[in-house]
Amino acid sequence: MDKAVLWQLSYGMYAIGVKDGDRPSGCIVNTVFQITSSPAIIAISMNKDNYTHGLIAKEGIFTVSILSEETMPLVISYLGFRSGRDTDKFEKLEYQTDANGNPIVTDHICGYMQAKVISQADTPTHTVFFAEVTDGVKVSDLHPMTYEYYHKVIKGSAPKNAPTYQQKA
Amino acid sequence: MDKAVLWQLSYGMYAIGVKDGDRPSGCIVNTVFQITSSPAIIAISMNKDNYTHGLIAKEGIFTVSILSEETMPLVISYLGFRSGRDTDKFEKLEYQTDANGNPIVTDHICGYMQAKVISQADTPTHTVFFAEVTDGVKVSDLHPMTYEYYHKVIKGSAPKNAPTYQQKA
Repeated sequence: MDKAVLWQLSYGMYAIGVKDGDRPSGCIVNTVFQITSSPAIIAISMNKDNYTHGLIAKEGIFTVSILSEETMPLVISYLGFRSGRDTDKFEKLEYQTDANGNPIVTDHICGYMQAKVISQADTPTHTVFFAEVTDGVKVSDLHPMTYEYYHKVIKGSAPKNAPTYQQKA
Repeated sequence: MDKAVLWQLSYGMYAIGVKDGDRPSGCIVNTVFQITSSPAIIAISMNKDNYTHGLIAKEGIFTVSILSEETMPLVISYLGFRSGRDTDKFEKLEYQTDANGNPIVTDHICGYMQAKVISQADTPTHTVFFAEVTDGVKVSDLHPMTYEYYHKVIKGSAPKNAPTYQQKA
């Protein structure tokens, strides 16, 4: 198989927010997609080794902040390439907290959603969480950051737990 | 909830190919996502009312053709807005057939994949099929068509079975 074909699939860039006790936590994912229209159900794919995975499994609710092309790369560095196990990922980031205590990124996002897990599907390395969107706000007309934009313009890479991770040759 | 936020999620545009006896069939989806890296597992979301849904459930294998910005809108009209129940959707389209008898669109695609269903998850209206990518070929460097491009440039709409369908106000 020519693995390059998998890089031709299109994705966005999102920050998942979830609370860890009193501390905000979360991570970056590129796999958020709408599964059904009514009710609005989304799916996200997350590696089981991610600290955020355990927090979502425990809390059952999370936020999705939709990053734009104007969102600072720092947001992705802080949330995507460090673990919430031993760091306060949001310490240097602009964010607000929703009524449930989950963080929402506020740096040039397109919008955000609050979601409640209703079921999950297991794969060898990742869990796909299905979640009903309980609230959502469009906050700007900024252009959503695509995964392609992240790679080509920001020259970003994927951490090894990402569904789209590829080992360097 | 502000439903407009759901339109800020990013997707690509794909043709799903599956055989219907001796006849090629399939449809258009915007939800094809890589779920795990190794093995490469993808997920697609499909409305249970779609004729293609039953064919995939029956055959267990399908193809994914990754449409590019150069792919003729006719491909989307023919595969996305008619039912394979009563029409030969591929009749006027350029395609090839893989070793399993599943059609692959050949009009300016980026690449294609062959996939084998390994499990599925149920939602009220859609099934999410998880499938292992058994083969994949990148056939061009054309720019993948995004769902946004389809809406903004081609001015396309979503049929009522699409996960992202919105009723007109």
